[in-house]
Amino acid sequence: MIMETAFIDVTPGSEAEFEAALETAKGIVAQAHGFQVIHVHRGIERPHTYMLAIGWDTLEDHVQGFRESELFSQWRAAIGPFFANPPHVEHWNLFE
Amino acid sequence: MIMETAFIDVTPGSEAEFEAALETAKGIVAQAHGFQVIHVHRGIERPHTYMLAIGWDTLEDHVQGFRESELFSQWRAAIGPFFANPPHVEHWNLFE
Repeated sequence: MIMETAFIDVTPGSEAEFEAALETAKGIVAQAHGFQVIHVHRGIERPHTYMLAIGWDTLEDHVQGFRESELFSQWRAAIGPFFANPPHVEHWNLFE
Repeated sequence: MIMETAFIDVTPGSEAEFEAALETAKGIVAQAHGFQVIHVHRGIERPHTYMLAIGWDTLEDHVQGFRESELFSQWRAAIGPFFANPPHVEHWNLFE
């Protein structure tokens, strides 16, 4: 498994709506090939910022499979309206 | 549980030594009050950068309990020599 981290700043005041939309979005990404798990975190020091940690079988499952799929369009349609700026996305190998 | 993230840039070339030292460091932090879990990640886009995700019972268990303890001195002595610059640390509430 590799881990994707996405840091998302939402428009201040839209946190409750974003969190509700995220419930829909989680159901969408969960259908993607190679998806394993999603963990959602909200910043304590930065309460308008969320960190999504998404586990994928391979890097390609995320950057090619999911991002180039119709599911990604649905995912972005659900949560994109609350983004204050483009998310910062990186990928990580996990140690046991 | 709250999650601490620590982004650590290590001196290029010291990755293997850092990873070995981290095995020692994990045994140290695991003794801290309120410690729950540690996950270690290495950057794919930034291979000199590690993300430690450490679960604590409460924020205070980390920022007061651990950081002000002798265990923290031991932790830093183990892995600090490999830091290229000060780690970037934040805290997150976890959603279920």
